[in-house]
Amino acid sequence: MAEFMTETEQRSAAVPHPGMAGGRRGRTGDAVADPNEEPPERHPDGRLEGQEAVALLERTRALVDPELRAALESLPGSMRRIALYHFGWQHADGSPATGNAGKAIRPALVLAAASALGGAAARTAAVRAAVAVELVHNFTLLHDDVMDRDTSRRHRPTVWSVFGDADAILAGDALQALALRLLAEDPHPAAGPAAVRLADCVVELCAGQHADTDLERRAPEEVGLDEVLAMAEAKTGALLGCACALGALYAGVGQEEVAALDGFGRQAGLAFQLIDDVIGIWGDPRHTGKPAGADLAARKKSLPVVAALSSGTQAAAELAELYAKPYISGDDEGIARTALAVDRAGGRDWAQAEAADRMAHAVQELSRAVPAPETAGGLLALAEFVTRRTS
Amino acid sequence: MAEFMTETEQRSAAVPHPGMAGGRRGRTGDAVADPNEEPPERHPDGRLEGQEAVALLERTRALVDPELRAALESLPGSMRRIALYHFGWQHADGSPATGNAGKAIRPALVLAAASALGGAAARTAAVRAAVAVELVHNFTLLHDDVMDRDTSRRHRPTVWSVFGDADAILAGDALQALALRLLAEDPHPAAGPAAVRLADCVVELCAGQHADTDLERRAPEEVGLDEVLAMAEAKTGALLGCACALGALYAGVGQEEVAALDGFGRQAGLAFQLIDDVIGIWGDPRHTGKPAGADLAARKKSLPVVAALSSGTQAAAELAELYAKPYISGDDEGIARTALAVDRAGGRDWAQAEAADRMAHAVQELSRAVPAPETAGGLLALAEFVTRRTS
Repeated sequence: MAEFMTETEQRSAAVPHPGMAGGRRGRTGDAVADPNEEPPERHPDGRLEGQEAVALLERTRALVDPELRAALESLPGSMRRIALYHFGWQHADGSPATGNAGKAIRPALVLAAASALGGAAARTAAVRAAVAVELVHNFTLLHDDVMDRDTSRRHRPTVWSVFGDADAILAGDALQALALRLLAEDPHPAAGPAAVRLADCVVELCAGQHADTDLERRAPEEVGLDEVLAMAEAKTGALLGCACALGALYAGVGQEEVAALDGFGRQAGLAFQLIDDVIGIWGDPRHTGKPAGADLAARKKSLPVVAALSSGTQAAAELAELYAKPYISGDDEGIARTALAVDRAGGRDWAQAEAADRMAHAVQELSRAVPAPETAGGLLALAEFVTRRTS
Repeated sequence: MAEFMTETEQRSAAVPHPGMAGGRRGRTGDAVADPNEEPPERHPDGRLEGQEAVALLERTRALVDPELRAALESLPGSMRRIALYHFGWQHADGSPATGNAGKAIRPALVLAAASALGGAAARTAAVRAAVAVELVHNFTLLHDDVMDRDTSRRHRPTVWSVFGDADAILAGDALQALALRLLAEDPHPAAGPAAVRLADCVVELCAGQHADTDLERRAPEEVGLDEVLAMAEAKTGALLGCACALGALYAGVGQEEVAALDGFGRQAGLAFQLIDDVIGIWGDPRHTGKPAGADLAARKKSLPVVAALSSGTQAAAELAELYAKPYISGDDEGIARTALAVDRAGGRDWAQAEAADRMAHAVQELSRAVPAPETAGGLLALAEFVTRRTS
């Protein structure tokens, strides 16, 4: 469940775009702009690509941060200090920091969904739910970093590496409690169903993280593509779906629309994960900040790799042989051969086609709940933003 | 926060009783009956000491277990398996076990409080809340065992030692979500305020566990008695208080009565911790299943030790000197000298007097909400049961 934010923040590579259904289809092959380059490329409809999402994310931070900080300030001293460090608002010694609390994509989805289905009033009402989703996301980051022994998050040392495992576990526990507390004290009629959904989502995130650690322990030939897709949906798609569904609940729409929004977020999340996995193999190190083929060096069972391994091709057999041996540091030629084998076995093409398909499904789901495409703009912009990796 | 159940289950030592206020006062010095001995001693009022609590706990298990199991069965496979192992309903290989899910003291307090203030209807309505409290308790046990590296719980290997840290963290996370989900989907008007209280309690438990690990890292002379008491209240008292308060909420009483029930549980919890710490030093190994003075060997900063250290006596100086050196395995004479120093510095007397005082306060709090003592019988029996350690 940590994948989404980590990768989004750390990588910004030029990759083929999976394309969008409807009016946005057929954009495959466009290069993603470097976030530091101006101006961003233009949409066919004249809107500035990516700028809408960036503006939405900024507006989200402005709405969400005061509530988020107030929630964190309500924690007892020890927990507050760890949480404020994690969100980048304090240094490890407790002194204030300008911070980097992340991009707020999930709360932005909550607010965009509320706005698309219920207008400005629903968006205002849903701020607390947006904060709850952000707290859940960050609770999982704290715990995943302990499990995965990740030492860096948002360009700073992870909580466990600064304060120790116990504090990271405890602060995560406290953030989950805080998230569900926010909904429990919210008098809005959507708060109860939202809490049920968010709690269910936490369980799904846990199962997804469990599946991920389990998959990584197993031999490549014992891992099926279906289960990697299911894992990615639980670990990455579930919370994006939940964010959209919570926004829909606060807009007061019916169960079908809520389910459609959940589907939209899930499918967009899967598209993201597929693209992220492609970047993990073919991403440009100048943009990703990681050596080329980092996922291959780690022998990660990412989606393109598992698709390639299960292709029954000659290249699949070669890939299986390469993956059976541990990576030797500095063996760039081995990495290049492995990447080529994934490509030749169809892993890259499959992942890109699958991502495009997922995005098409996402848009389809969205159109079930939002028949007028102009009101869905924010949601589409956010989905495109995360799958195009423009920052 | 793990302390309460572990110790209660593992120890059953003959210790002086802190005494009860009101009609139950002045019982200090009574020996606690061995749980296997029959018949138990008689109360002045003719009721069988301990039997009332045992019957209450059995009735609680009968009411709570079906809901608890249904909640656990709703988990995805991987999380379900870990949870069912933890509760003793499955072996590690997934085969069924008759199990030992613990004594259910906290759910019994929820139901006894609901019953005392709202009768049978309130008790029935509060079953879901009782399950939620039990889930929270067990989520903290799963995480505390990881942090404390405890290898045994309820006479079985702990989850982390069987399934690994990641699974123990994830299953704990899932149980917390399940607990708050149960309340979120409960249509009872008390469910919302109950969820707020339970979430706040989780935050307090986290702060308590943090304080405990922090205290144990510090030098004995840097640890104040007030902060150890505050830690014990957060780590042990908070959830007992919350359990009683939730029962009161489901009985539909006012905020003052709810606060009084919370106070009752907190004070009883502190009395328990004080007695538990006395047992950790002077408990009979035949009953505790631990070597004599286990807490002293671990140089634990338990309440009698910290009280002794801060007494300003000659014995305190001697104790500080003994505690500054690590325990050498088999040094029974050193343990005996250390125990004597705690005793001579007044640590034992203080802890017993303090426990008696806490129980008196507990009963006082209870009488604020339950003026007729006959309806409070269940709560008093449970409080006496946990502080007398009759099983």
